[in-house]
Amino acid sequence: MNNGIDAAIRYAEAENERFLEELKDFIRIPSISALSEHKGDVLAAARWLVDALTRAGVQGARLVETAGNPVVYGEWMGKPGAPTALIYGHYDVQPVDPLNLWQSPPFEPKVRDGKIYGRGTSDDKGQVFMHVKAVEAWLKTVGELPVNVKFCFEGEEEVGSGSLPGCLEANRDLFQADVLVISDTSMLAPGRPAICYGLRGMAALQVDVYGAKGDLHSGIYGGGVPNPIHALVEILASMHGPDGRVRVEGFYDRVRELTPEEREAIRELGFDEGALARDLGLPALVGEAGYNYVERTTARPTLEINGIYGGFQGEGTKTVIPAEAHAKITCRLVPDQEPGEIMDLIAAHVSRHAPAGVRVEVRRFDGGRPYVAPLDHPGIQAAIPAYEAVYGTGPVFTRLGGSIPIVEDFHRILGLTAVMMGFSLPTENNHAPNEHFDLENFKKGIQTLCVYWNELARRGLT
Amino acid sequence: MNNGIDAAIRYAEAENERFLEELKDFIRIPSISALSEHKGDVLAAARWLVDALTRAGVQGARLVETAGNPVVYGEWMGKPGAPTALIYGHYDVQPVDPLNLWQSPPFEPKVRDGKIYGRGTSDDKGQVFMHVKAVEAWLKTVGELPVNVKFCFEGEEEVGSGSLPGCLEANRDLFQADVLVISDTSMLAPGRPAICYGLRGMAALQVDVYGAKGDLHSGIYGGGVPNPIHALVEILASMHGPDGRVRVEGFYDRVRELTPEEREAIRELGFDEGALARDLGLPALVGEAGYNYVERTTARPTLEINGIYGGFQGEGTKTVIPAEAHAKITCRLVPDQEPGEIMDLIAAHVSRHAPAGVRVEVRRFDGGRPYVAPLDHPGIQAAIPAYEAVYGTGPVFTRLGGSIPIVEDFHRILGLTAVMMGFSLPTENNHAPNEHFDLENFKKGIQTLCVYWNELARRGLT
Repeated sequence: MNNGIDAAIRYAEAENERFLEELKDFIRIPSISALSEHKGDVLAAARWLVDALTRAGVQGARLVETAGNPVVYGEWMGKPGAPTALIYGHYDVQPVDPLNLWQSPPFEPKVRDGKIYGRGTSDDKGQVFMHVKAVEAWLKTVGELPVNVKFCFEGEEEVGSGSLPGCLEANRDLFQADVLVISDTSMLAPGRPAICYGLRGMAALQVDVYGAKGDLHSGIYGGGVPNPIHALVEILASMHGPDGRVRVEGFYDRVRELTPEEREAIRELGFDEGALARDLGLPALVGEAGYNYVERTTARPTLEINGIYGGFQGEGTKTVIPAEAHAKITCRLVPDQEPGEIMDLIAAHVSRHAPAGVRVEVRRFDGGRPYVAPLDHPGIQAAIPAYEAVYGTGPVFTRLGGSIPIVEDFHRILGLTAVMMGFSLPTENNHAPNEHFDLENFKKGIQTLCVYWNELARRGLT
Repeated sequence: MNNGIDAAIRYAEAENERFLEELKDFIRIPSISALSEHKGDVLAAARWLVDALTRAGVQGARLVETAGNPVVYGEWMGKPGAPTALIYGHYDVQPVDPLNLWQSPPFEPKVRDGKIYGRGTSDDKGQVFMHVKAVEAWLKTVGELPVNVKFCFEGEEEVGSGSLPGCLEANRDLFQADVLVISDTSMLAPGRPAICYGLRGMAALQVDVYGAKGDLHSGIYGGGVPNPIHALVEILASMHGPDGRVRVEGFYDRVRELTPEEREAIRELGFDEGALARDLGLPALVGEAGYNYVERTTARPTLEINGIYGGFQGEGTKTVIPAEAHAKITCRLVPDQEPGEIMDLIAAHVSRHAPAGVRVEVRRFDGGRPYVAPLDHPGIQAAIPAYEAVYGTGPVFTRLGGSIPIVEDFHRILGLTAVMMGFSLPTENNHAPNEHFDLENFKKGIQTLCVYWNELARRGLT
């Protein structure tokens, strides 16, 4: 069957340079959802996407209002009877600090060594944009797609996707589809595509410790009043044991253990832990006793302190006992842990370990449930020949350490199974300075998506 | 004997408003020694003091170069055969963060409720300035002082006085005197003057923990790589036990225990711990088991974490494992602890408690030895009638929780005993937002110093 796929692919190849220039415009918009001063930029990125979809030939591209940042919607529904895919991605990006570690400014995209550098290039603007261009390739050559598509690009993924579930519930008909396609995950390595079938969930919190009503001189008061930093480090240190296990009481109670088959499949990946340690400049990888690195980072739950602050941070010394100290925590969850329950357990642990003299608060941010997809789903199976056609090899099936909380929301609210075809690489510094995206995968990924729509039409979803 | 003391005191009373306006000019100079961007302001404050001394009638006021910020020197040596007092103070101030907690800007002095607010009003510009004005009162009325005086005002006290010892050693003749007079300590309470005869020493350090060579996504890498914040809180939490004692091995080995007489004198002060806790907004005071608040904060050594930072500190959540995390520590030391030895013990403790996978460094800042003065020294005894004359009550003798590291340096290099006549109050927010100084003590303190020079001349120092 060749219903125009060659023409679509030739178009994608021929126009790749233009696509890259357009992507740079998208990257230049500093749509950091975590920082309220970038509210206008987040909106600008959404509007930019509406224009990009319209230019690609998508119909009715527009902003759908939510309780927070808008969702970008668009559709091409010209193939009655064919499957309808809902394409999800996010146009918001992570903060950029520490800024001084970026080799080129995060919002001035630069190509170096076959990679494009800039915040959002890999997570997730680059991959969102690839979907727009794969659809454009079909529509500008064949004039139609082999399937129906809808787009749902949100602007709050990096802050927990708080508004999306409500938006999906309020617009069930609009977003209704047969399968969900997401490109926000990683390949295993260069040339080794992967389909993610499992995601860890998340529970995010902040611990705030308060002492005296103001900062105090540590010479005058030192040794006689509670120091919130002392209390905070005591509370936080109590959360892990020397065996690398989380010591929050009840934390592991609902964890589904890996099956012997899953552990065997992970061993067969042949992951090189020594090479990763060297790449990261680490003397050793560490983690929960009894599990290897891949298990620890994909199928085991974690508790990570993402930030800590209190008192003096300048040059030299300041002899102060600060009035407060804070820490930010995110847990990664695995089936069948529940984010709300985990937050309860942590709050109880914090209360239990708070020393005398301080007041402690636990603030809860949004959480997301873990997710595992059935591997025999036809939407997942259709991706195998698409990868084989472009990369010359089929995908491996992996579970991801990170979270895309909305995957579980889409499943719960719209009953959709997610096909996670990610084109970034694990080494592309998502969430860190010098985020980048490989231009080889930018090109091949668009082509893979072109073929995927064809395969999905050919196989159907029944 | 009345050799003009009444005229000097009347002058000080009559000119008090003008003195206050001049002090405000001094406070307006943001001479923060800890921050290199204020280098020029530190120098401006030194030059302002040279002018102030010259206007007061002091001879040869000038800057003495040091390895760092200059020392302000001046002298009035017109009384051969009379004792010579060296007056020490510092013109540098603490940083001002967190700035948002100041009710009025730290370098825009404001009078409210009989207090002057601003950084340095209490520690130590206000008290430095009182010495200048007490000398002015004698010189502008009587035309001479009853004793000889030399001034030594340094600009690095808040960063450990690193350059002063070298300056004293290089200029022994210039600074040679019979007694050292310092006003950088506190009264016991309003209306209750105090002479400090003991100071805690200090050892200041920074702990730096390094993990991977860059920040990592905590979803992708979480649970599989070392997190420098986890390592830091583990190291720091190991430094105190649940009994409030410092757990750094060997920390208490050289500590001179309080005598039963000293403990009895402290009990007689009748310190109200409940009232202090209420004032500070604390549910309870806490500290080393077996000691009361005054003992803990003046005669027992401490280890306080003054600052901690690593990872994300913004609004909301950032799913990052930072590449590094840091903490700032100061210890207060008592006789016979040695700063260098304490730093060695802490560095060894940090190494011993550093978990696998991270690299840890301990950076040493300056330290200062503890000091205790003999209470029967005639320079100390001469202060008793001076306080009685102005405050209507003699001073209590106290040990101070804070450090003035140079007191021990003056003793070692020049053989001087320190008479610490401080006029600030323990509640004046030194080193914290809303630092202020009571104007009643600003006025009475100048008068007390006027009388003190008379009493010192009358008694002599032999």
